[in-house]
Amino acid sequence: MRIALDAMGGDFAPGPIVQGAVEAVRDLPGTEVVLVGDRAQIEPHLAGGDTSGIEIFHCTQNIGMDESPVEALRRKRDSSIIRCWELMGIGRAAAIVSAGSTGAVVAAGLFQKKFLKGVKRPGIAVVLPTANGPCVMLDVGANMAAKPEHLFQYGVMGSLYAEHILKIEEPTVALMNVGTEEQKGNELAKETHALFDSSRLKDRFLGNIEGRDIYKGTAHVIVCDGFVGNVVLKVCEGLVELVLSNSADEMLARLPRDQHDAARTAFEALMRRYDYSQYGGAPLLGIDGICIICHGASGTSAIRNAIRVAGTFAHDHINELIVSELNSHS
Amino acid sequence: MRIALDAMGGDFAPGPIVQGAVEAVRDLPGTEVVLVGDRAQIEPHLAGGDTSGIEIFHCTQNIGMDESPVEALRRKRDSSIIRCWELMGIGRAAAIVSAGSTGAVVAAGLFQKKFLKGVKRPGIAVVLPTANGPCVMLDVGANMAAKPEHLFQYGVMGSLYAEHILKIEEPTVALMNVGTEEQKGNELAKETHALFDSSRLKDRFLGNIEGRDIYKGTAHVIVCDGFVGNVVLKVCEGLVELVLSNSADEMLARLPRDQHDAARTAFEALMRRYDYSQYGGAPLLGIDGICIICHGASGTSAIRNAIRVAGTFAHDHINELIVSELNSHS
Repeated sequence: MRIALDAMGGDFAPGPIVQGAVEAVRDLPGTEVVLVGDRAQIEPHLAGGDTSGIEIFHCTQNIGMDESPVEALRRKRDSSIIRCWELMGIGRAAAIVSAGSTGAVVAAGLFQKKFLKGVKRPGIAVVLPTANGPCVMLDVGANMAAKPEHLFQYGVMGSLYAEHILKIEEPTVALMNVGTEEQKGNELAKETHALFDSSRLKDRFLGNIEGRDIYKGTAHVIVCDGFVGNVVLKVCEGLVELVLSNSADEMLARLPRDQHDAARTAFEALMRRYDYSQYGGAPLLGIDGICIICHGASGTSAIRNAIRVAGTFAHDHINELIVSELNSHS
Repeated sequence: MRIALDAMGGDFAPGPIVQGAVEAVRDLPGTEVVLVGDRAQIEPHLAGGDTSGIEIFHCTQNIGMDESPVEALRRKRDSSIIRCWELMGIGRAAAIVSAGSTGAVVAAGLFQKKFLKGVKRPGIAVVLPTANGPCVMLDVGANMAAKPEHLFQYGVMGSLYAEHILKIEEPTVALMNVGTEEQKGNELAKETHALFDSSRLKDRFLGNIEGRDIYKGTAHVIVCDGFVGNVVLKVCEGLVELVLSNSADEMLARLPRDQHDAARTAFEALMRRYDYSQYGGAPLLGIDGICIICHGASGTSAIRNAIRVAGTFAHDHINELIVSELNSHS
């Protein structure tokens, strides 16, 4: 399968992005990558290596991380993000991978309005590390006006993702809420709870969970509206960074100098443990196509993982399963 | 001033609760405490000590942490939580402190509908440790149907709390959102942003912040709706616990045995740093009275701190300042 990779997206682009493509094509049989971006910046990173299975689609513009997504998409018609979506739209690529501005990648995708049959609103799913293995949380920012039916569909889509990408059999689903009792929460939460309870997912629906349950690994799939999910995700990023960097300082101050290297190595290992890029990026679920969004700080292995996930997504026909599930539920 | 202390509320009640009262009365001049709860359980913890300034208000029931708040309040009319509110209602106490079920304490308070003049909806504020000193976040769970005006009022009330309790001059205020641009977020966030921008608080209003900014200490006061705030607070609790306990394990595994004590001490110090009970509990702001909610795991010093905060709250006339600010804003 051929993947359109946003070569210009990400804090360190295009170096590690191109390298991730090279490794993916080398390691994953049947994978081809279209590097979308400025040919002059991409080519040096390909020089001297084996470039079979890799082509460049040249474009002249790039949307920065700090730009307003909607405005940038309007002005920069020749940006790598827009070109990626176009390549997928015309069938020249089966999937998109980008470590660029999440807002711009999602907005460009939603703009096309090519959703899977039966899907009301696509959602961004992230895979989080927990004490109990990985879990999928969605939506984390695609949908700012969630309705109960949207959250229910996130449960269906998140389950299929957990099953096929994370290899979890019969994943459990829970609703993010402010307490575990059934009558807890705002109107959205109460109505969503009722919808799950009367659905075909009800045997795998655990009901409400609280914020502290995410990292305990209480559920395999957690659904929430995009506002809540986005805030939670960013809180986690900030907090892990702060706690770990403070822990490191505190620890080093109390240990003899000859133990500093061991302590530093331990902290680096810990940072990796909470680094969700290991799970291969965040899919935008519900679109007619495959779009995997990577963290801005993605390096070579995060990009390679995202390309691998895109491949499994296509191979396992996750979109067809979503359509079939949603249309049999209704 | 006299404080009604829920002697039965909290994971370790009544022992450390009673001890907290004893220390507060000893250390804080002019403080009297009414211990509300089962006399037979309270008295042993007072035996042999100086009990001047302390009285017991006997009641027979207690609302557990896992009970449904609304139902429990209906059934248990002689519970310590209800009796605390009644004592404040009839003027026999100027403030309430409880480490019992937050849901029940808040529901009992809201049930009375005695809000300060001009306050639309009370909110629970927590003080969080950040890289940059403490910050106040509200609402964290009193109000599940927030409107822009409620969030604006939280900004006003949170500012006064930060100023008087945390001693922060001209505290800055920010709106929890999914991005920093003005047009970001759901309808509630957009309308709230506009409301702050046209208010007397506008010079101290920083606009939107993201989840990762909380712990950076970007703002002194962060406003959000009670659903988001509650989820965020519990995510933080769970994550800090997980990260720190994992860090401790990882670190100990890599260090020689004779360094284990130093490492454990460092981790205990860290746990304390993220322990927000040091800031004296969470006030329910906007009610006609003073109510400080403590964490269920509160020990002696958390209770003493909460009693101290209640005293400052009364001494500085924070409620009068809230009424005056809100009614001059409108």
